[in-house]
Amino acid sequence: MILKNNSTLIFLGDSVTDCGRSPDGELNLGSGYVNLFSSMFRIAYPEAGVRFINQGVSGDQTRQVLARLERDVLSIHPDVVTLLIGVNDVWRFFDRPFAYQGVPAEEYRDNLKKIIEPILAGGAKMLVMTPYMIDRSPYEPMRTKMLEYAAICKDTAQTYGVEVLELQPVFENLLAKGITSYELSGDRIHPSQKGHFAITMALMEHLRPETD
Amino acid sequence: MILKNNSTLIFLGDSVTDCGRSPDGELNLGSGYVNLFSSMFRIAYPEAGVRFINQGVSGDQTRQVLARLERDVLSIHPDVVTLLIGVNDVWRFFDRPFAYQGVPAEEYRDNLKKIIEPILAGGAKMLVMTPYMIDRSPYEPMRTKMLEYAAICKDTAQTYGVEVLELQPVFENLLAKGITSYELSGDRIHPSQKGHFAITMALMEHLRPETD
Amino acid sequence: MILKNNSTLIFLGDSVTDCGRSPDGELNLGSGYVNLFSSMFRIAYPEAGVRFINQGVSGDQTRQVLARLERDVLSIHPDVVTLLIGVNDVWRFFDRPFAYQGVPAEEYRDNLKKIIEPILAGGAKMLVMTPYMIDRSPYEPMRTKMLEYAAICKDTAQTYGVEVLELQPVFENLLAKGITSYELSGDRIHPSQKGHFAITMALMEHLRPETD
Amino acid sequence: MILKNNSTLIFLGDSVTDCGRSPDGELNLGSGYVNLFSSMFRIAYPEAGVRFINQGVSGDQTRQVLARLERDVLSIHPDVVTLLIGVNDVWRFFDRPFAYQGVPAEEYRDNLKKIIEPILAGGAKMLVMTPYMIDRSPYEPMRTKMLEYAAICKDTAQTYGVEVLELQPVFENLLAKGITSYELSGDRIHPSQKGHFAITMALMEHLRPETD
Amino acid sequence: MILKNNSTLIFLGDSVTDCGRSPDGELNLGSGYVNLFSSMFRIAYPEAGVRFINQGVSGDQTRQVLARLERDVLSIHPDVVTLLIGVNDVWRFFDRPFAYQGVPAEEYRDNLKKIIEPILAGGAKMLVMTPYMIDRSPYEPMRTKMLEYAAICKDTAQTYGVEVLELQPVFENLLAKGITSYELSGDRIHPSQKGHFAITMALMEHLRPETD
Amino acid sequence: MILKNNSTLIFLGDSVTDCGRSPDGELNLGSGYVNLFSSMFRIAYPEAGVRFINQGVSGDQTRQVLARLERDVLSIHPDVVTLLIGVNDVWRFFDRPFAYQGVPAEEYRDNLKKIIEPILAGGAKMLVMTPYMIDRSPYEPMRTKMLEYAAICKDTAQTYGVEVLELQPVFENLLAKGITSYELSGDRIHPSQKGHFAITMALMEHLRPETD
Amino acid sequence: MILKNNSTLIFLGDSVTDCGRSPDGELNLGSGYVNLFSSMFRIAYPEAGVRFINQGVSGDQTRQVLARLERDVLSIHPDVVTLLIGVNDVWRFFDRPFAYQGVPAEEYRDNLKKIIEPILAGGAKMLVMTPYMIDRSPYEPMRTKMLEYAAICKDTAQTYGVEVLELQPVFENLLAKGITSYELSGDRIHPSQKGHFAITMALMEHLRPETD
Amino acid sequence: MILKNNSTLIFLGDSVTDCGRSPDGELNLGSGYVNLFSSMFRIAYPEAGVRFINQGVSGDQTRQVLARLERDVLSIHPDVVTLLIGVNDVWRFFDRPFAYQGVPAEEYRDNLKKIIEPILAGGAKMLVMTPYMIDRSPYEPMRTKMLEYAAICKDTAQTYGVEVLELQPVFENLLAKGITSYELSGDRIHPSQKGHFAITMALMEHLRPETD
Repeated sequence: MILKNNSTLIFLGDSVTDCGRSPDGELNLGSGYVNLFSSMFRIAYPEAGVRFINQGVSGDQTRQVLARLERDVLSIHPDVVTLLIGVNDVWRFFDRPFAYQGVPAEEYRDNLKKIIEPILAGGAKMLVMTPYMIDRSPYEPMRTKMLEYAAICKDTAQTYGVEVLELQPVFENLLAKGITSYELSGDRIHPSQKGHFAITMALMEHLRPETD
Repeated sequence: MILKNNSTLIFLGDSVTDCGRSPDGELNLGSGYVNLFSSMFRIAYPEAGVRFINQGVSGDQTRQVLARLERDVLSIHPDVVTLLIGVNDVWRFFDRPFAYQGVPAEEYRDNLKKIIEPILAGGAKMLVMTPYMIDRSPYEPMRTKMLEYAAICKDTAQTYGVEVLELQPVFENLLAKGITSYELSGDRIHPSQKGHFAITMALMEHLRPETD
Repeated sequence: MILKNNSTLIFLGDSVTDCGRSPDGELNLGSGYVNLFSSMFRIAYPEAGVRFINQGVSGDQTRQVLARLERDVLSIHPDVVTLLIGVNDVWRFFDRPFAYQGVPAEEYRDNLKKIIEPILAGGAKMLVMTPYMIDRSPYEPMRTKMLEYAAICKDTAQTYGVEVLELQPVFENLLAKGITSYELSGDRIHPSQKGHFAITMALMEHLRPETD
Repeated sequence: MILKNNSTLIFLGDSVTDCGRSPDGELNLGSGYVNLFSSMFRIAYPEAGVRFINQGVSGDQTRQVLARLERDVLSIHPDVVTLLIGVNDVWRFFDRPFAYQGVPAEEYRDNLKKIIEPILAGGAKMLVMTPYMIDRSPYEPMRTKMLEYAAICKDTAQTYGVEVLELQPVFENLLAKGITSYELSGDRIHPSQKGHFAITMALMEHLRPETD
Repeated sequence: MILKNNSTLIFLGDSVTDCGRSPDGELNLGSGYVNLFSSMFRIAYPEAGVRFINQGVSGDQTRQVLARLERDVLSIHPDVVTLLIGVNDVWRFFDRPFAYQGVPAEEYRDNLKKIIEPILAGGAKMLVMTPYMIDRSPYEPMRTKMLEYAAICKDTAQTYGVEVLELQPVFENLLAKGITSYELSGDRIHPSQKGHFAITMALMEHLRPETD
Repeated sequence: MILKNNSTLIFLGDSVTDCGRSPDGELNLGSGYVNLFSSMFRIAYPEAGVRFINQGVSGDQTRQVLARLERDVLSIHPDVVTLLIGVNDVWRFFDRPFAYQGVPAEEYRDNLKKIIEPILAGGAKMLVMTPYMIDRSPYEPMRTKMLEYAAICKDTAQTYGVEVLELQPVFENLLAKGITSYELSGDRIHPSQKGHFAITMALMEHLRPETD
Repeated sequence: MILKNNSTLIFLGDSVTDCGRSPDGELNLGSGYVNLFSSMFRIAYPEAGVRFINQGVSGDQTRQVLARLERDVLSIHPDVVTLLIGVNDVWRFFDRPFAYQGVPAEEYRDNLKKIIEPILAGGAKMLVMTPYMIDRSPYEPMRTKMLEYAAICKDTAQTYGVEVLELQPVFENLLAKGITSYELSGDRIHPSQKGHFAITMALMEHLRPETD
Repeated sequence: MILKNNSTLIFLGDSVTDCGRSPDGELNLGSGYVNLFSSMFRIAYPEAGVRFINQGVSGDQTRQVLARLERDVLSIHPDVVTLLIGVNDVWRFFDRPFAYQGVPAEEYRDNLKKIIEPILAGGAKMLVMTPYMIDRSPYEPMRTKMLEYAAICKDTAQTYGVEVLELQPVFENLLAKGITSYELSGDRIHPSQKGHFAITMALMEHLRPETD
């Protein structure tokens, strides 16, 4: 996707996106991939002039993103929106298995549709990143479920013709090349700085400046 | 093993044992399995009168345990010593892969011998717990290496006729019954309170009062 | 009492129950008997799948429990509720003797009825624990009054056919066997971890899994 | 005892005396009976001009007082020394029953002698306060042992002709008149401000100004 | 004045009274004369059973006391009220001379009337303490003005037949006997603990138990 | 006195000089008159290029200044030294009257000589400021003693032909013109910012640039 | 401008004015030029009796000053108002270039008019300080824009016959004389104490007492 | 320069390098360019296996680097060393102009030689980065001096045939393309994250993996 000069880009997501950003989403872009990507992009393409806004909220599932969509995204009239949501829809089934806070698969798909449709209707382009677990093992039940949701996410995005960046292969490829899971994340979800660089460098290939 | 009335028991190990214990090892037993076990044992067998001392130190490998053996164990002349060491001998190969801080397998075996021999020579009985990773997957390279070290640990202990409590099967059995890895540990090494209870309840079967 | 698989259990009480739990009562179960019991039960019976909710509030007397009953208990439609309340109804007569904040005996009985009736009417089963003071002496005036309230509590519960767990004999039995009062509690009310284990192990006998 | 004008008075003891005093013992007299007594004495007898020094150290048993006697008392050449020590000699048998940190009765008596003799030899007068437990019950084992040590303390002091202030009757008399144990102390050892006033007002009767 | 058994006493005032008391005025009585007096009274007369409530608020002038009179005093229906107010009515003319926050003398007199009348009408007895500056010098302009306000305070109280305790002579008498101003207060207004004892011991003579 | 261009000026004194300066005395000049003077001088005479070093130490009496003279002053070979010492020599007689920490008048005079002589011998010029108490009253005993020490200080300095800046008249003149003591200082010793400006502006008249 | 005796002066501005002042603007005047000026003025002219109020708010642009004009300035009916605003109107174009938070030049001029007119209409006199950047270089784009806004500010003030103090030449003059930019400010906007003295001493020439 | 697989790379420098790194230089690589570069390199070239060690110390000039060269660099026997030193050699002339802490140009050249020679003699390769000031203006005296030192640095390195990365043109090029100085640094020395990315991306071009 081409990021036009002087356009506005919103990063929408959960704690992987949030990383301690300021309430306005601009004064402090947090310590994760949003900050890394926007700094690197600004230095690499100083004439592009893109406005970056972090709208990640720690703990969010698709339910909460849906509830704050108008205020945090639509009212700002962005040119581009990236979306990375779903990790917590799955994780709550596994870290709090009896609290009934996971989001069922069908509700996940519906919520995604209700998030994507108004954003596209508002005239923005989207890049959807799929949820992941930094683990290569078929023995881990949460990875199995995460793959299912990642497939739903990819499928839903493509229904609307939206560009997709699959993160599970990004991480599994690094694991296969000898980077350990502890280098990328302490808990297999929240990325370390190396993990955030993995996302950042994948994003740099998907979001290109108008004139390179 | 029978814990005789009025005997002294030292728990020797790393951060899994330490858990914030006080420097003297008695005033505060930490927040992990040492504390759970000693409290439960005291309530279940109020007439046993056992003295419990926590000598775990966060971050320790066999190298550091060896260096502090005289001061922290032998000089106290305990009746029983439990040992849980080796997790960090392995982990350092994986969380800091280029810092050359892991302990090679043969050094691990030698260090264990140098820890066990003087304790037995001092007249104490031992219970050795094997290192573990809370993961069931053959795809995880660190688990493969941890199994290797656990086998060395078990083998070494049995050479001296010392009782062994294998922790890997304790955790894998719980995973197999549907307890998730996140319930037992955030990072697959440091136990949550549930994880510490798994160790505690296994210990309760291995360390019995003189008269039940 | 049998805790059916996949049932919901609420622990209702004061600071002895609360122990720093999170506002939602599930994310953090506090550092007392609720946490010990639920962790031990989960490890001992991994297939039971019980949801545990801590609804203790520090400082509560029966008056405050009554006021928050709808929100904190009834609206959640639990399957089982444990109740441990009354310590503060009595204690306020003794630590703030002129502030008129103790609850008279008859009001205590009435409040208990108003707490128990709607819970039973909502279809939940109950286990009532009686208030206690960790002291064996007839010379201590607060213990005398606490025994009176414990008797009211037991009598009221039995009127409704509710199961009762008397805690005063649990603690006095341990004192008689040589455990000191300072091991169980600094102030004879708030349990140490050993004191919480005394409650926990008594609870483990009263709350049994569906299939052991 | 008469406190002569312009004399120097040292308060020697444990945490009941210490109460957060400054290292030099004069800049901050702590928040306990030393501060209350010296302030009240200064206001009641403004012309007396007495120098007050707090040499209490939290946690001290007779062993530690003995070890610091030269530095903290003798080298200052006081005119009067009050001594309140022994609570921790007993308490350690009860709050850490298996850590072997209590002081046996005969050692307690010997230590007291070794503390009193050089102070008297240095020309100071002494007032010895006996250790106490704020509890009236013969059912409490620690009170029984504390009474034994208080008797040793009184007996030893009187052997040297030293004035004695027995604190156990001071507190039991207040309990008998309806002041509750929680008003005087949370843990039956460390006094509340009311508890410190009980000591202070007893001291005011034992330490009189030169001219009233 | 006789404090009847089981009566309720409210201390009304500014920071000299407040001293860090808890919002309810009972749980924590602060670190000043209210705490010293109530503790000493409780120990000296254990059978009196008086309820003490601290309603001091730091920074208050008569204006603020008037505004909170209904909530903090009248609604509690006390038996006795002590009043110590006026220091800040004067001080604001001297520490912030151009901020126009001092209370003129006539307003001070009127405010006192509006405070005293409803308290007496509510059936309570009063003891009025006059404002003071811990300084003996006619060269200090603030002392001159404080003496003027103290005279207004005494005169107003006597108009209603209310008992008066003049604090300026209490402090000047101690200064005359050689206690330095720095012993009584760092800033000549806020008492040190010795300064609070001076107030406390004067109060002990004015507020007597029913049966001594 | 003329401050030559590129000269080094040391401010020597107690807490009035110190005011939180950094250990090296240059990185942070503190929040008192040293900082105000050096900033104002630098802005007023930007071409003068004077190096300023704060060597005040809170709590110092002449005894402590003497002990650190070699390290803090002589070894730096300053061109000019200002000295403001003596407040604590007197104050200790009044805030801790029985701790025997005041410096007698004759020792004060001797100490001053031992401070001044080696500084002059080292080739530096001096400006001596006399100790003060911000109070105009002959009724205040500490002011009487401070005036005595200020006279000793002035007399001693003049014996050596050293320039003197008397601070007592600086402050009394402001008090006489209607500035209140609370504007200049909370405790009549430590200056507020206004009080530090009083010193600063007096210093600006005594320390002049080479070319104005 | 002559500051009449007993008049009220409000300092209106942004973080350069605010510097940590208290909410009421009087209790604490902050650590910047407002505090320096008012302290120096009070000491230099003790009989003037001027009331100083700091109404600076960190981060403010003309937009925010306009919004709070009624509450923070007009309702107080000051005699004199100083205004220093505009730095942030410009800076936001440079430290957050894509967040669209700078104030365009024409809006800046309009906002200034809407601030000045009601203040003058309320009967106050004004002194307007122009925004600045502590940099002498024509190569710095932000200085170029700041000069443009300073010119607008000066021009607007003079339209109303208001006295102007240009700060850019104050700072550039000091830089030209060898004071480095780091002595005056770390970031070329927020003054160090030396930088605040530069403003203070310029203000002392513009705001004169009624009788010197 | 080619970074061979499994080689060890030390980053040597001042606060620009340090950025809060851990004492061992490996556990925490700080928050600056060292961390960014090593994370990006690890993700981009997962098979390279390079060990990264941060040996920056905040505040260091060449003098301090020289003093710690043996311990921090030579004893580790690195394969490659990057050096970025000199900013503080210059800056101290400007932020503390009269404290005589700047390093003269000839001493700077000599120190560089004494740093480079033993590193090369130890068998390591070097990459020298030149000191910079993020300012384009010939009106800024510190930039003029920094350019002089950067020339010395470049010249000295080239004398030894060492590769040089000039940072001044890196930053000036970005300023010329419209990135503001405040985006790159608040004080024109310490880089923001964007500023650290500018260094990082220049480093990525100079330090290449063995097989890309």
